[in-house]
Amino acid sequence: MNGYKRIDEKDITYIREIIKDDERVLAGDNINEEYSHDELSGTSSYPDIVVKAGSAEEISRIMKYAYEHTIPVTPRGAGTGLVGSSVAMEHGIMIDTSLMNGILELDEENLTVTVEPGVLLMELAAYVEEHDFFYPPDPGEKSATIGGNISTNAGGMRAVKYGVTRDYVMGLEVVLPNGEITQFGGKVVKNSSGYDLKDLIVGSEGTLGFITKAILKLMPLPKKVISLLIPFPTLKQAIDTVPLIIKSKSIPTAIEFMQREVIMDAEEYLGRAFPDKQSDAYLLLKFDGNSSEEVEEAYDKVAKLCLEQGALDVLISNTEEREESIWKARGAFLEAIKGSTTYMDEVDMVVPRNCVNEMVTYLHNLHNEVDIRIKSFGHAGDGNLHAYILKDDLSDEEWEKRMKAAMEKIYQKAYELKGQVSGEHGIGYAKKPYLRESLPNENISLMNGIKKVFDPKNILNPHKVAQM
Amino acid sequence: MNGYKRIDEKDITYIREIIKDDERVLAGDNINEEYSHDELSGTSSYPDIVVKAGSAEEISRIMKYAYEHTIPVTPRGAGTGLVGSSVAMEHGIMIDTSLMNGILELDEENLTVTVEPGVLLMELAAYVEEHDFFYPPDPGEKSATIGGNISTNAGGMRAVKYGVTRDYVMGLEVVLPNGEITQFGGKVVKNSSGYDLKDLIVGSEGTLGFITKAILKLMPLPKKVISLLIPFPTLKQAIDTVPLIIKSKSIPTAIEFMQREVIMDAEEYLGRAFPDKQSDAYLLLKFDGNSSEEVEEAYDKVAKLCLEQGALDVLISNTEEREESIWKARGAFLEAIKGSTTYMDEVDMVVPRNCVNEMVTYLHNLHNEVDIRIKSFGHAGDGNLHAYILKDDLSDEEWEKRMKAAMEKIYQKAYELKGQVSGEHGIGYAKKPYLRESLPNENISLMNGIKKVFDPKNILNPHKVAQM
Repeated sequence: MNGYKRIDEKDITYIREIIKDDERVLAGDNINEEYSHDELSGTSSYPDIVVKAGSAEEISRIMKYAYEHTIPVTPRGAGTGLVGSSVAMEHGIMIDTSLMNGILELDEENLTVTVEPGVLLMELAAYVEEHDFFYPPDPGEKSATIGGNISTNAGGMRAVKYGVTRDYVMGLEVVLPNGEITQFGGKVVKNSSGYDLKDLIVGSEGTLGFITKAILKLMPLPKKVISLLIPFPTLKQAIDTVPLIIKSKSIPTAIEFMQREVIMDAEEYLGRAFPDKQSDAYLLLKFDGNSSEEVEEAYDKVAKLCLEQGALDVLISNTEEREESIWKARGAFLEAIKGSTTYMDEVDMVVPRNCVNEMVTYLHNLHNEVDIRIKSFGHAGDGNLHAYILKDDLSDEEWEKRMKAAMEKIYQKAYELKGQVSGEHGIGYAKKPYLRESLPNENISLMNGIKKVFDPKNILNPHKVAQM
Repeated sequence: MNGYKRIDEKDITYIREIIKDDERVLAGDNINEEYSHDELSGTSSYPDIVVKAGSAEEISRIMKYAYEHTIPVTPRGAGTGLVGSSVAMEHGIMIDTSLMNGILELDEENLTVTVEPGVLLMELAAYVEEHDFFYPPDPGEKSATIGGNISTNAGGMRAVKYGVTRDYVMGLEVVLPNGEITQFGGKVVKNSSGYDLKDLIVGSEGTLGFITKAILKLMPLPKKVISLLIPFPTLKQAIDTVPLIIKSKSIPTAIEFMQREVIMDAEEYLGRAFPDKQSDAYLLLKFDGNSSEEVEEAYDKVAKLCLEQGALDVLISNTEEREESIWKARGAFLEAIKGSTTYMDEVDMVVPRNCVNEMVTYLHNLHNEVDIRIKSFGHAGDGNLHAYILKDDLSDEEWEKRMKAAMEKIYQKAYELKGQVSGEHGIGYAKKPYLRESLPNENISLMNGIKKVFDPKNILNPHKVAQM
């Protein structure tokens, strides 16, 4: 049907000649089970061969070979994706970037850092902080690779103030499906020189080109950071306060909402207590700035605003210990919910910020329509909600039925609110049907047309994003 | 060669039926001379018919007709472009958006404003300020339309702190070349739902789709704004200070450099005196914030830094009068230089910020290689320089020869410094050869492939950007 060549011994021999290091080429039984799936999507498929690439040149040579022989290639970072983007649906060659983890240059004059794609987010964050710089994107999964972050346009907690990964990608080196190495963008702050190919690669989930290098924008490191944990009598009151905070002139870096149920999962998962338990509904705010006065002035105003809106208390987290205990819990939500059930699937929709309350209320009431447990938390400040549908002790059949029913309804509601299918996790393989339902046919056709321009033989990560 | 149908009486009749208002349809001799060119590019070509569109539906019907009959269509805003993007190279239909100038919605909860494409930048800025909001992009030409700003991804003075137009476009309504109306993006802060079509439209200079509506991101209006005018003994000292300012934790909204020669042009053009004349080289900085203390702290640090680097003085502009006299001069540079010669052409290259000095020095010395006057000023803080090559009393033949020689050299130098052809004015018709020289062939092929996906009959603004 697809006309792909299946990998044979000759192909493996050729690839081994390019790589010249047997430990970086895995085939057959040597392929670890982890390479067959990602963290959540439920999709599973083994590549025929895994190559741990060492350079753009190696990737270019492999892509040229794959292009010539019509062999599918799947890019892979740390495998922490949630929607199947890094699963080799058509088998073939998987190129793992985890060894391409060099931080190549810190340019203090242009405020950029140049990295290979396999650098982990936590490594990058620590490195630039050591040099008094700041890489603002802050997705929950710190052990994801930067290449993966760019490929999904990962968002994270600090999007309210600082934007998402896209906003920090200035230039990319990319191996095209035909094996040519090219550059998009660069160390320039402004650019109106032709179509924006760089932003087309960002968020394309490894389907248009293979990212082999990235020039990222840095900022000066804010000197002061403080968090506020604010219990409210009801979640509605908490979330209703968010638009007021956004309208005030004090822009927090993060506005998260959370509920007792999820906090308790995190406590159990981490084996440590959360600093407050007086209420069912919390806002968690973060502020940063360059002086204590600046930060204090900002949070003071917001704290008053929250109390006026009925907040029960305002807990200021100004010690490292408390700060860690709050954000560690927040960071563990996904894993904690996962640990509280047998299996789960997720919805990563994004809605306009003023529709968060309606969406959350909808999620809470959905239980009445579809008998299945749903937990949610998320970025109240940017409208990106994470809803987890839990299997618990449902039979596989019941699970499939109810999960799909719940998911359909959630996406339908997001669509009504003029939201989008994914705020930050991407579409990959698992969310394709929902993308198709949510976008006009014209947009899907354009996306598939663009895919064909970059990848006429459809060898790079096929069956992903808009492709059926 | 191109196979376009030339407009005839039947076509005009059909278009008049769609528009139903004779005053909004101009044909033949009724077409004003201004519609045959833009502000600078030197390109000139008349459309056969000009339609002042009133709605997306009208544009959609005209595009459908044009698509069916293979008639070229050129989008037009205020005609303030500098590279020929809005000139009807193949004649046909010009659609002028200046009557589609409604501000449709101010959404105070989501911090967005929704506008039609014909709203002028100055109208938008004034409107949102009245409502205590802030639209950060600040290109010099305030009477450009927002549709034009989006189409060129206009940058402006505040890019150092706030980024460019692209960063403020959240959603677009677009009429595709086949006449279908579709939406890209929306009122969502995060989005990882398929390829980034929205950013492909931004900066595509009206070649991929016709923008009929835009959802723009706003910010809270900073309460305090202050400027510093800082004379230095030499331009080199001034520009060498810029990377130090950028590295300090006080991010100015703008860092401009200017020299006496251009300031004197502006004085003459405006008929009013510039507040300082003690030096040949100035940095002009702007700071904003929400309290006097915040702004003072920021500029105080930068002022000290400049004095340490040899600045002769620091003039604080804290009265409205002084503020106006400085920025009015800065805003008039382009027109003032234009007024100081018989004819000119421009280079809008962008280089990494730490290469500004090398580029400026190169421009100054170029006079020794090519006997032609060149004036420059620009955005020292973001690496985007505007160089103007002046005809003065050269014969047409000499002008062509020397201008082309100078331009070739400037672009070559920008290329060596890993810069790009255009920082904010775009490529249009005039800069196509330089774009082709500056980008890998692969990138040009991808751009033309994408153009074909959106516009298979090549009817929307042909011969622009990457198209030969």
